Amino acid sequence: MGTFHTDIPVRTRERAHWIDITEQLRGAVRASGITAGICVAASMHTTAGVTLNENADPDVGRDFFWKLDRLVPREAAYRHSEGNSDSHLKASLVGFSVTVPVKNAEPVLGTWQGMYLCEFDGPRQRRVTVTVIGE
Amino acid sequence: MGTFHTDIPVRTRERAHWIDITEQLRGAVRASGITAGICVAASMHTTAGVTLNENADPDVGRDFFWKLDRLVPREAAYRHSEGNSDSHLKASLVGFSVTVPVKNAEPVLGTWQGMYLCEFDGPRQRRVTVTVIGE
Amino acid sequence: MGTFHTDIPVRTRERAHWIDITEQLRGAVRASGITAGICVAASMHTTAGVTLNENADPDVGRDFFWKLDRLVPREAAYRHSEGNSDSHLKASLVGFSVTVPVKNAEPVLGTWQGMYLCEFDGPRQRRVTVTVIGE
Repeated sequence: MGTFHTDIPVRTRERAHWIDITEQLRGAVRASGITAGICVAASMHTTAGVTLNENADPDVGRDFFWKLDRLVPREAAYRHSEGNSDSHLKASLVGFSVTVPVKNAEPVLGTWQGMYLCEFDGPRQRRVTVTVIGE
Repeated sequence: MGTFHTDIPVRTRERAHWIDITEQLRGAVRASGITAGICVAASMHTTAGVTLNENADPDVGRDFFWKLDRLVPREAAYRHSEGNSDSHLKASLVGFSVTVPVKNAEPVLGTWQGMYLCEFDGPRQRRVTVTVIGE
Repeated sequence: MGTFHTDIPVRTRERAHWIDITEQLRGAVRASGITAGICVAASMHTTAGVTLNENADPDVGRDFFWKLDRLVPREAAYRHSEGNSDSHLKASLVGFSVTVPVKNAEPVLGTWQGMYLCEFDGPRQRRVTVTVIGE
């Protein structure tokens, strides 16, 4: 049993950006040398989250962000004065970490599952920490 | 220390279905032989999530799904053409995995907590992967 | 490799209460003696969740709760008869557990990240279980 930590750097290009980081996750798990266990991908930010969703049709991400924007609009009677209250809220709703099983030295994802960084206050330089724990 | 993987198969019967999988989770933890650690229950899908909630009154699940339906209705100006954009969005809001402590060879849940598969695009055959890691 | 369990007791003072538990989390990780791995903070309740968010401006928490209240109001056509359906729903949206990497005997949080108990049906005595697993 052992533990492995690494970082995935992500450069976002828009205020709201849905970025596939599945390949970086696979790379991190392979680099760990761990063949069975779990991996945790954790956003180190408060206005960008991490989630899983469909890896085939990019419209799923567009729909997700469009709908989140209607539920939590940028402009509202927020008190926080930085103009990104909506970003903090969206990130907490999406969540900041995802835990995925590791088997045969690979993250175990469903056929249609990809891992996504959800940027809600970009463009920025972001960082997702991956921890792999197992044997 | 060791790692144990197993699958919980779940047959859903409706488009939106709130299914208690707490007993299957307990069974998976017992089968693992691990007495102290954590267990991760992860949906292998993009339109079905996993969450915890009240195990006593089934109306809690009904209220949850009813309210989610009002927040993220099935029909809207979505681009994804499969008619299940709402399902993808609801699943990402609920989340795809839950991590629970393991103590005395049992998942540690609060008195009122049960684990639920949240089907948003059924009926389908679903799969929740349970990973137990510990000693 | 080893496993460590402890509880963080939290006394909430209002129906909706955003409480910083970052220091308690740090204390739990230090007490574990584990220097590398992960820690899982899990709410043992169905109407209180756990999330990360900004630790600098308390208005972020206020905005979050205000907006959640507009999305999931206390009064609606709920079936659950205890008057806290909104609390169950908000807690499931926020989530019941957060997993954070552990490095150098500390939880690895981003510069602006703090951990929060989100009380949605207080005031109550609450409990967050922290499990640390690693080496």
